[in-house]
Amino acid sequence: MKIVLIGSGNVASVFGRLMKSKGHELVQVISRNPGHAQVLAEELGCAWSGSSDTVNRDADIYLVAVSDSGLYELNKSFYLGNKLILHTAGSVPKDVLKEISTNYGVLYPLQSLRREMAYTGDIPLLIDANSDEALTLLEDFARTLSGNVSTASDEQRLKLHVAAVVVSNFTNHLYALAEEFCRNEQVDFKLLVPLIQETANRTAYQSPAAMQTGPAIRNDIFTLDKHLRQLADHPALKYIYLKLTDSIMKK
Amino acid sequence: MKIVLIGSGNVASVFGRLMKSKGHELVQVISRNPGHAQVLAEELGCAWSGSSDTVNRDADIYLVAVSDSGLYELNKSFYLGNKLILHTAGSVPKDVLKEISTNYGVLYPLQSLRREMAYTGDIPLLIDANSDEALTLLEDFARTLSGNVSTASDEQRLKLHVAAVVVSNFTNHLYALAEEFCRNEQVDFKLLVPLIQETANRTAYQSPAAMQTGPAIRNDIFTLDKHLRQLADHPALKYIYLKLTDSIMKK
Repeated sequence: MKIVLIGSGNVASVFGRLMKSKGHELVQVISRNPGHAQVLAEELGCAWSGSSDTVNRDADIYLVAVSDSGLYELNKSFYLGNKLILHTAGSVPKDVLKEISTNYGVLYPLQSLRREMAYTGDIPLLIDANSDEALTLLEDFARTLSGNVSTASDEQRLKLHVAAVVVSNFTNHLYALAEEFCRNEQVDFKLLVPLIQETANRTAYQSPAAMQTGPAIRNDIFTLDKHLRQLADHPALKYIYLKLTDSIMKK
Repeated sequence: MKIVLIGSGNVASVFGRLMKSKGHELVQVISRNPGHAQVLAEELGCAWSGSSDTVNRDADIYLVAVSDSGLYELNKSFYLGNKLILHTAGSVPKDVLKEISTNYGVLYPLQSLRREMAYTGDIPLLIDANSDEALTLLEDFARTLSGNVSTASDEQRLKLHVAAVVVSNFTNHLYALAEEFCRNEQVDFKLLVPLIQETANRTAYQSPAAMQTGPAIRNDIFTLDKHLRQLADHPALKYIYLKLTDSIMKK
């Protein structure tokens, strides 16, 4: 497929490399930040532009990987006829693109993508489109990029985005709070990495509800009391400790 | 080393197998639950007893892997002279064992241990003892079990136990809340597993504070509002969503 990539951030960079590695032809990178567009285009070996006014109209697929607000601000003069245009956002309906083409859809990566990282496993891709024809084209394209492709409506994608925030953004915040606690208390956060990985890896083959351990689920008031005294100088973490302990105890 | 293992739960089972696989000689399993003691002893190829009154006094190390309350209830008549006795608890001081022997310490696994799972990587072990002599013996023993051995005082161990609850028990609770949400909303929780693993694996080489993403850190009110409307029928998860979003925004 011949691809125009709109955006130059983490998602655009990871998708750009992935598409190129799977044999697709990147023809242009467009970004409001011309410097970023140029850097990514040079890596991908294609043209670049700082404006959608000069969009290459000969591609097969237009992949828009920009912020949610950027999607709503997409230049409406940027009309593509019936060329397939896709966005990559979890919480934005597909018809945000309906003024730009008669064929539009979504290619949402259910993964945290950062340009500095290598992705070896399949990225779960959730796809959706406004017509059977567009969906067939998108599905064939998505399967060249990943072995883990599912269709999901706007509503299903939004629900999975909510769940993704819970299992990724919120757990990362807990890691960050624990890291800060360890630094201030002069113990080594890195000692916790195998435990963090084991807890995460179990979700692949066990129900997390059945795997719950720790003082809260045991109603172990003595340990909870010892822990809360350790958190006296860490009010933000102490507050979260209490709220999550309560939530576990109510299960 | 000749070992007597006191306890027959998850920690005792995982340690028993690990010690045997590293060439140590298990001589006896003691548990208040005779059926469990027998099952584990048969697996390890040693004697068993339902009472510490019949403890084998010819071992080198006595490893007590029982609940915290079980540690405080250990039979004080169970006196071992100067044989090294160890417990495995994160939040219990080492001197809970001081009536039992003149040489005592702690061998705390900073990992979630379950008997049904195989552990291939090194389990981080935190060790402590009441004398240089006991610590040297314990350190040599611990290094036969794991390549990741650190000394940690009662206070340091307690702090790491607090942090372990945050990064393991609390994250697992978030996984469980997300799983329940997905089940009720009929989307597939398993699609989130690669994201869960990626978020966890990053802690090995990046600071979680620098990796924070999502609507809360971006102050993205539109997405937060969409998400909260999805949580209308999930009050427990909605409450946690609000508390953790607040906590991230305050960073």
